[in-house]
Amino acid sequence: MGVAVIEASMTKFGQRDTWIRELLAEAGKECLTDAPIGPDDVEHLYVSNMASGELEGQTGIMNALAHDLALLPAYSERVDQTSSSGGAGIYEAWQSVASGVSEMTLLVGGEKMTHRTTPESTDVIASIVHPVEYKHGVTLPSFAGMTARRYLERFDAPRESLARVAVKNHRNGVDNPNAQFQTEITMEKALESPIVADPLRLYDFCPITDGSAAMLFTTEERAATLTDDYAVVSGIGGATDTHVVHEREDPTVMGGVVESSRQAYEMSGLDPDDLDVAELHDMFTILEFLQLEGIGVAEQGNAWELAMDGDTAKNGELPVNTSGGLKSKGHPLGASGVAQGVEIFEQLVGEAGPRQVAADVGLACNVGGFGNCVITTVMEAAK
Amino acid sequence: MGVAVIEASMTKFGQRDTWIRELLAEAGKECLTDAPIGPDDVEHLYVSNMASGELEGQTGIMNALAHDLALLPAYSERVDQTSSSGGAGIYEAWQSVASGVSEMTLLVGGEKMTHRTTPESTDVIASIVHPVEYKHGVTLPSFAGMTARRYLERFDAPRESLARVAVKNHRNGVDNPNAQFQTEITMEKALESPIVADPLRLYDFCPITDGSAAMLFTTEERAATLTDDYAVVSGIGGATDTHVVHEREDPTVMGGVVESSRQAYEMSGLDPDDLDVAELHDMFTILEFLQLEGIGVAEQGNAWELAMDGDTAKNGELPVNTSGGLKSKGHPLGASGVAQGVEIFEQLVGEAGPRQVAADVGLACNVGGFGNCVITTVMEAAK
Repeated sequence: MGVAVIEASMTKFGQRDTWIRELLAEAGKECLTDAPIGPDDVEHLYVSNMASGELEGQTGIMNALAHDLALLPAYSERVDQTSSSGGAGIYEAWQSVASGVSEMTLLVGGEKMTHRTTPESTDVIASIVHPVEYKHGVTLPSFAGMTARRYLERFDAPRESLARVAVKNHRNGVDNPNAQFQTEITMEKALESPIVADPLRLYDFCPITDGSAAMLFTTEERAATLTDDYAVVSGIGGATDTHVVHEREDPTVMGGVVESSRQAYEMSGLDPDDLDVAELHDMFTILEFLQLEGIGVAEQGNAWELAMDGDTAKNGELPVNTSGGLKSKGHPLGASGVAQGVEIFEQLVGEAGPRQVAADVGLACNVGGFGNCVITTVMEAAK
Repeated sequence: MGVAVIEASMTKFGQRDTWIRELLAEAGKECLTDAPIGPDDVEHLYVSNMASGELEGQTGIMNALAHDLALLPAYSERVDQTSSSGGAGIYEAWQSVASGVSEMTLLVGGEKMTHRTTPESTDVIASIVHPVEYKHGVTLPSFAGMTARRYLERFDAPRESLARVAVKNHRNGVDNPNAQFQTEITMEKALESPIVADPLRLYDFCPITDGSAAMLFTTEERAATLTDDYAVVSGIGGATDTHVVHEREDPTVMGGVVESSRQAYEMSGLDPDDLDVAELHDMFTILEFLQLEGIGVAEQGNAWELAMDGDTAKNGELPVNTSGGLKSKGHPLGASGVAQGVEIFEQLVGEAGPRQVAADVGLACNVGGFGNCVITTVMEAAK
């Protein structure tokens, strides 16, 4: 059964003076208010969230949200796949409609993080790392640093290519009123910012963020009766890579991206050449290269050239992270994958405002851990 | 598409000297070893778990388990619905097969709890309660006490009827080698045990437990080619009730049980009279009554009579909790709903050993919070 997205929304991302329950309700309410249906029509609710228990001491947020949005007795469930919880939520929402048990499914992803100190928040994120790695001080930023060093050396890529990703995504974020940072940065600023994990510097990393995002799914048939402005999830796939990063054959290949995008292309009958716009998981700038290669837009070791040539800029051949990406939009863990879907939806239905590009086909790639779990979604504008 | 269960297993429940990762792998490995397929056949893995982050500081357990069971690149995801995470996992596994994205799905539910003190563990469980309730000291056991008092008074039920549930489920647990308690108790012992939340006493409560359980799902068509001993999930449904218990119209009605069982009966085309065996979520003895009424086996206010008459005993009209239930088998949160499925599967395929009853149709009801989220599953023996 064809699955469609008929509405999408997100909150302002950034430092938010509220708690997870209100944050989730904010995006959920906006999505329902704008949708051509009522709360009673919603049959399933999925909440993408990694760590409300660890960060706020509050669990049971799915049934709290079902209550706050007046969805009872709709089914409610929390989906966790660490940083890719949002993408996993899209997959579950898709399955609920495709299997026929729900004709109208609301997905809300969110995370409240900034009330904790940066060491506290990063420690919760680091809890996905295997204890063996953690004891040696290997956290996600240090994996990123080692991977970037290897990539630059092996493929003879200039350090500037990574800074180009940061500059591009900050530029895109200026046009996104919901982005955490709406500030352009210069190449000099990116290249001279403090070192975090050599060769990566401050501007190679996404910030810590509060925020939520929502999408509303139904069957393609029902969507067509409700609105002209809908998109179709024509392909989706998910895959797992090794839990321990050092067991991977080639650290510059994201196996989960390769496999999940293969599934998504196969289901949709499309290939990389068909893409008009993409949201990639640029938690670290280097990841934008690895995902461009993983989804088949560039050959291995070549993605940096796209950045240098401006091919992934808004006016380039394949605009990447028109939303600003995790880099400037922010990265509230459970919300990020959903917010990627929100951007692709808005691009496909022509609601992206100053960020609008010409797009009939979009792809979102959401990454958990250091590529441990990956979801790739291909969406198409309604015919 | 019809969805079948072709294998199921569980670990010994109780105090286990291990951590969540090994605990999950134990049930998962046993399930795969006994199954007529190999790890490479598994396309999706769901892990039902409420609180590995809060209880052990370890997240990312789904991709760790996919790795430990050699399932890569299979999709992996954690499903949380507090105490009903296991039932939610059954629902997700069902959806993954019914929607066509996975032809072979492994579900593993587990929780590691006993390494923390009882106050620490119960505080994590209490984090599902709304802060307004929590500040007034209302925890799940106190909800159970208030509900039991109201039930006994309103329906003129004897206090002994609750003790009968405890005695029956302890009796059943004697025959379950995986139960935490394999010890009979007397009516006197139950009725004279220390008061926890008046009128409920120690033996009205389930213990704190470590353990895991696993089930393997595929299409009915593929199941028939692989084995004669399979069961079919012919009906399943899930529902949410108010997050704040005092907002419910009638505290002696579990609305989520009523609604989720209605869905499960509708999908299966069966009704309460068709049931041969049931696993109910007896976290507190009073809940067995409320669920018997919610699933339509008894009228409101009448379930206590079934307990007094022995109708729910192993040799009664509808054997309930032949596994020993949460009461004597134990309640490792994320594992409990899966373990209910394991018991129903074993009853339907005739592998329940000394606990075996004659059964072609079984029902499992898994409850999160104090009825906040409920999943009801109806399973049938292969024709």
